[in-house]
Amino acid sequence: MAGHMPPEEFRRHGHEIVDWIADYLARVDTLPVLPEGKPGDILAVLPDRAPEQPEDFSVLMADLDRVVVPGLVGWQHPGFFAYFPGNISPPAVLAEMVTASLGQQGMMWSTSPAATEVEMRVLDWLVDLLGLPQAWKMAGPGGGVIQVSASDATHTALAVARYRAQEEAALDDLVAYTSSQAHSSIEKGARVAGFRHLRSIEVDYQFAMRSDALERAINDDRKAGLTPAFVCSSVGTTGTTAVDPVRRIGELARKDGLWHHVDAAFAGSAMICPEFRHHQDGLELVDSYVFNPHKWLLTNFDCSVFYVADRQPLLKALSILPPYLRGSASDGAVVVDYRDWHVPLGRRFRSLKLWWVLRSYGAEGLRQLIRTHVSLAQSLAARISDHPRLELVAPVPFSLVCFRHSDGNEATISLAEAINRSGHSYVTPSSINEMSFIRVSIGQTKTDQRHIDRLWELVVANA
Amino acid sequence: MAGHMPPEEFRRHGHEIVDWIADYLARVDTLPVLPEGKPGDILAVLPDRAPEQPEDFSVLMADLDRVVVPGLVGWQHPGFFAYFPGNISPPAVLAEMVTASLGQQGMMWSTSPAATEVEMRVLDWLVDLLGLPQAWKMAGPGGGVIQVSASDATHTALAVARYRAQEEAALDDLVAYTSSQAHSSIEKGARVAGFRHLRSIEVDYQFAMRSDALERAINDDRKAGLTPAFVCSSVGTTGTTAVDPVRRIGELARKDGLWHHVDAAFAGSAMICPEFRHHQDGLELVDSYVFNPHKWLLTNFDCSVFYVADRQPLLKALSILPPYLRGSASDGAVVVDYRDWHVPLGRRFRSLKLWWVLRSYGAEGLRQLIRTHVSLAQSLAARISDHPRLELVAPVPFSLVCFRHSDGNEATISLAEAINRSGHSYVTPSSINEMSFIRVSIGQTKTDQRHIDRLWELVVANA
Repeated sequence: MAGHMPPEEFRRHGHEIVDWIADYLARVDTLPVLPEGKPGDILAVLPDRAPEQPEDFSVLMADLDRVVVPGLVGWQHPGFFAYFPGNISPPAVLAEMVTASLGQQGMMWSTSPAATEVEMRVLDWLVDLLGLPQAWKMAGPGGGVIQVSASDATHTALAVARYRAQEEAALDDLVAYTSSQAHSSIEKGARVAGFRHLRSIEVDYQFAMRSDALERAINDDRKAGLTPAFVCSSVGTTGTTAVDPVRRIGELARKDGLWHHVDAAFAGSAMICPEFRHHQDGLELVDSYVFNPHKWLLTNFDCSVFYVADRQPLLKALSILPPYLRGSASDGAVVVDYRDWHVPLGRRFRSLKLWWVLRSYGAEGLRQLIRTHVSLAQSLAARISDHPRLELVAPVPFSLVCFRHSDGNEATISLAEAINRSGHSYVTPSSINEMSFIRVSIGQTKTDQRHIDRLWELVVANA
Repeated sequence: MAGHMPPEEFRRHGHEIVDWIADYLARVDTLPVLPEGKPGDILAVLPDRAPEQPEDFSVLMADLDRVVVPGLVGWQHPGFFAYFPGNISPPAVLAEMVTASLGQQGMMWSTSPAATEVEMRVLDWLVDLLGLPQAWKMAGPGGGVIQVSASDATHTALAVARYRAQEEAALDDLVAYTSSQAHSSIEKGARVAGFRHLRSIEVDYQFAMRSDALERAINDDRKAGLTPAFVCSSVGTTGTTAVDPVRRIGELARKDGLWHHVDAAFAGSAMICPEFRHHQDGLELVDSYVFNPHKWLLTNFDCSVFYVADRQPLLKALSILPPYLRGSASDGAVVVDYRDWHVPLGRRFRSLKLWWVLRSYGAEGLRQLIRTHVSLAQSLAARISDHPRLELVAPVPFSLVCFRHSDGNEATISLAEAINRSGHSYVTPSSINEMSFIRVSIGQTKTDQRHIDRLWELVVANA
């Protein structure tokens, strides 16, 4: 067939690609962390129409350096302090190569026993590694599944909560709650799932949800004839990694029959170290939970882990069984068919990379990574506290440092811009209630003291 | 750090993996297309707890052969005639390796200009390649985006339609419509998006939606005080690849203000050949459209392409703009931020593999692939028609052949079981209205006349 690549040619090009990747990863520190182009630059060098005839693989490879690399952002650069990390790692990349090649569709047990059972086992491993409730294991009433992103998992939780509540209430009357500091995915998920009402609950001086305000909001809505149905606690908000009072929110949710979801997208990975687990106190009062190994646990995107304490409401909301998707194993209900655990039907063999990461680093190696980043953050926070023209704006429970210039918003924004012009360090400017601040998210795999020192010199020189 | 793999070690293991993959792809034809194990076999060989200390990479590689391969289903086996194909290809696998290594997050233009602009351009290419309306290009009012699966894309269409309709109607009153032969993702997506009412419209003798029945259902619902909001046409149903009357359904949708979505998940790839485009007549009367290059266009899962004729309702339903996601480029609205085109925020650089597939095969190479499969299907259908104890149950517009044993359901199911016990051929038994039949989906990359002949011998011997 035209364009068909025989096995031996694939092998040869595969080796070329591995060398290109190894070289790229070795030099990523030397590339600018932010690309310099403007919108449309890449479009301008791409032809308007697809080729009629096959192009040689060497041309594609050459375009990696000519077209792609100049338009990359340094997510794998040790000076990447923006957003939250999105880390790759060598074992995860190697596993992704295998996953791509096997081309498994793990929608049902019978369409890929390997993809299904490795996922079941690895997600059980994480329950012990992170100190999560034992009921979330597959042998219990709950269980875990890999989803694409925390946005997907949170949306799933919202949809299940809504489906459960709509049995007894009008859709237009359902209400969801989260703090004013929760991630945008809660608002988006609630809108997509059909909630007309989302209450933004006020936070305390440390940016954690005020449970008294939540209780008041729930009572007010009940009095107004509405039906409170869902609440999301954050363990590590995106703005400042604030931690909501999970236990207290859980108690309110139980009393009032709300579905209680926890968004620990970033901070969940820290729980592999026992010293951080006090931040997740109360998980036995939680209905669903999400955290992202693709952020801070060295496992390539996409790998967002979603747990439910009881899988029955999830399966009730999401199971559909047409004739062409029946399998003898499924009918017996002795197996897990992961298609019923999320919106998509098709699914990649994503547990392979998580399995390889956990085994390649070992629990001890991953704890060491987390502790290194947290320690770097603490030392940076101490320097900021000691500086006369800088101030922290929030506690540093994990590895995100939030600070501002004492002269105010303008000076703070100028400082962020100076950092992002450096080429070697990249931070995210943000704001809460009109107060601008700079987020320094320390979590890139290769970040060490030298990169923090380089950032600090830049901060001092521009403050 | 414990478990950390230095660049040169990554390079060495990368070469080992490429050789393992090339060997696997060369021998996949010799492996059984269906694994022999039973539920729990793989779990039984996996330890209960994650290791504390790093394991050597050689142990992980050995477990590929020991644990993983025996639990794989032959999605890349040329005797895979089940479901629809889920094809990998050499250029797509090579691109996935690069995508995994770059670790880009393409949620906004500014978080990865390369991932964003390559996607914009390649999806514009497909508009021309498939003969889709020019308005769906990025320069027009519409545009395309890569989503995870057709289930996600269809759910997105349902959520946008619902969001638009709920401005003027109660959520509890909204109604969605699709044929009784539509894919389960419509029912699931409607449920997840919060539709209480989904009408299953009857089909004609060729299993295509009856537009008169649709019109009647819409009118009945209006009279009952409900609000018709969404209709999905199928171009190639999952059961038999039946084609709904897209133009007629589009006219009804326009007249009544319904969102009109087209599910061409499998058959959309065929439109790269002009001779199949009469099946998509009426696309200018469509609001959204999905097809899966990860099924029949040689591009690894996940790669589901979603087009909208007008991007404004989509962006209105899905845009959320918190302070930590603001970018100067986005504020100017001169760029595309793909986070606003689907539920997830994070996203992989998936357009790279589609770009490489289109260039490696060229349009001509892909047309040749489609025509080969369709021609194999036609010749198999002719053999079935000529056989005294077999009969076709539906037309064969693409490359899915649906047939049954003349003796009835029991004989048909026995025949399917005999085929699936062969180890070399795998089909899906299905049913419509109590009539059992066998789906032979011909679309695996490496399937040729020999594999069809082998299947046919098996059919004849067991019929």
